[in-house]
Amino acid sequence: MKVAFIGLGVMGYPMAGHLKNAGMDVCVFNRSAEKAERWCEEYKGGMALSPAAAANGCDVVLSCVGNDNDVREVLLGSDGALSAMHSGCLLVDHTTASASLARELHGLASSNGVGFLDAPVSGGQAGAENGALTVMVGGEEQDYAIAKPVFEAYSKFSKLLGPAGSGQLAKMVNQICIAGVVQGLAEGLNFARKAGLDGEALIETISKGAAGSWQMENRYKTMLADQYEFGFAVDWMRKDLGIAIEEAKNNGSQLPVAELVDSFYAEIQEMGGGRWDTSSLLARFTRK
Amino acid sequence: MKVAFIGLGVMGYPMAGHLKNAGMDVCVFNRSAEKAERWCEEYKGGMALSPAAAANGCDVVLSCVGNDNDVREVLLGSDGALSAMHSGCLLVDHTTASASLARELHGLASSNGVGFLDAPVSGGQAGAENGALTVMVGGEEQDYAIAKPVFEAYSKFSKLLGPAGSGQLAKMVNQICIAGVVQGLAEGLNFARKAGLDGEALIETISKGAAGSWQMENRYKTMLADQYEFGFAVDWMRKDLGIAIEEAKNNGSQLPVAELVDSFYAEIQEMGGGRWDTSSLLARFTRK
Repeated sequence: MKVAFIGLGVMGYPMAGHLKNAGMDVCVFNRSAEKAERWCEEYKGGMALSPAAAANGCDVVLSCVGNDNDVREVLLGSDGALSAMHSGCLLVDHTTASASLARELHGLASSNGVGFLDAPVSGGQAGAENGALTVMVGGEEQDYAIAKPVFEAYSKFSKLLGPAGSGQLAKMVNQICIAGVVQGLAEGLNFARKAGLDGEALIETISKGAAGSWQMENRYKTMLADQYEFGFAVDWMRKDLGIAIEEAKNNGSQLPVAELVDSFYAEIQEMGGGRWDTSSLLARFTRK
Repeated sequence: MKVAFIGLGVMGYPMAGHLKNAGMDVCVFNRSAEKAERWCEEYKGGMALSPAAAANGCDVVLSCVGNDNDVREVLLGSDGALSAMHSGCLLVDHTTASASLARELHGLASSNGVGFLDAPVSGGQAGAENGALTVMVGGEEQDYAIAKPVFEAYSKFSKLLGPAGSGQLAKMVNQICIAGVVQGLAEGLNFARKAGLDGEALIETISKGAAGSWQMENRYKTMLADQYEFGFAVDWMRKDLGIAIEEAKNNGSQLPVAELVDSFYAEIQEMGGGRWDTSSLLARFTRK
């Protein structure tokens, strides 16, 4: 199978590598060519100098870039990947972006006989490197059937969740849930610190019960140590929460805590923590 | 070992039963005597008509009642359990109450040579019935050494977390964390509903990752069904959050989301949901 991978960020770089390691014929494109050259050297794959050139002759084209505008830039227009794709090809966008963009891309692709799936991922950089991502998919059954074995190169789980946009909507729910979990954990650990409790003994006691969460289990040690220079960046979380808050206006749902936590992340950015892990909500208490 | 158990609510009733089943000589007291009579019939234990009478001649006295005032009523005063306890005895309070009351009781007990542990539990009614509670303990090592085998009759885990009051403080952290988790989950599931996502498929996809929690795993089914008539009651959660918010004023920690969620639970009470499970935060969206 001939595939193109567009966008070699902390996620895309190892994802494209897993595809090559799985035996696929992979051609990459990245806006800064240096990174594409490094990837080619590491994985012995091919590279192209435009998204359209990368997509040319491919069965499946995958993208994983920054935001809606970046997706438009690499997929649409005369140099965009879609211009080089023909009937029967499949376009997959792994970027966390808006549901409306996903629906627009699905429409544009369909009118050329090209399949489209919105397929944001979770699991972070570690998940991408270990091939253990989760892929949340929106689109049509027959397109998912083609994509599923491709996803298996870098994911431990993928699921088709509904029509175009459903993958993006599911990712929004994921981020909304995380916002509440992390802020509750930050308030709890700050309270514990102020109350003089031993954090390790506390977490050992409460983590298996009704207060337990992935965040508590995987982030309490670094939170107790007040360390945040790793993980999923606050800058990206703000982008994702912004998309969710915008979509909530469309569908009429209320997000009081997600909106409040988004404002707390804005404070973290002002503190210089845009690249810190999302668990840095605790730093609003400890470093002010 | 001769023990007294004071307070046969949904928690105390099965807890006292586990003690009797473990071979201890158990005497119970409950403010409404009918329930004590029913307990005696079911477990073939003894009952008394006052806390002092129940405590008389016991090595360990355990209480599990409603709030600070209830604790004072059953433990202090001329009819209270403490009046009948002598040097070398141990008093354990399983009630979720304030840390200041725990310190006060520890002081009063100590001055009579009586040991005291504050030991709130988590795990709910099901945990009490199945003998699978978690016990968060504050007090002294030698007293915990006596209590530990007693706790094992109805708990799967107990831990001494520090001096008197530490058990209560840990329970407060537990409830603060839960407030954030449940509200995030409620906002996420409501958003999913408004967005037209299939809830089951969504949770299957996101529950193993960074958004995952005990609450998501154990409450999503009933939340999707909009059912809340079970579990840990909103009335009790408000009591617990009230204690935590009060303590936060003492120790100078901020609880923006826990306070907001407490106000949401007040709305649930106004909707007639005081006895609903804490996951009913979703009903603020679905039933209004």
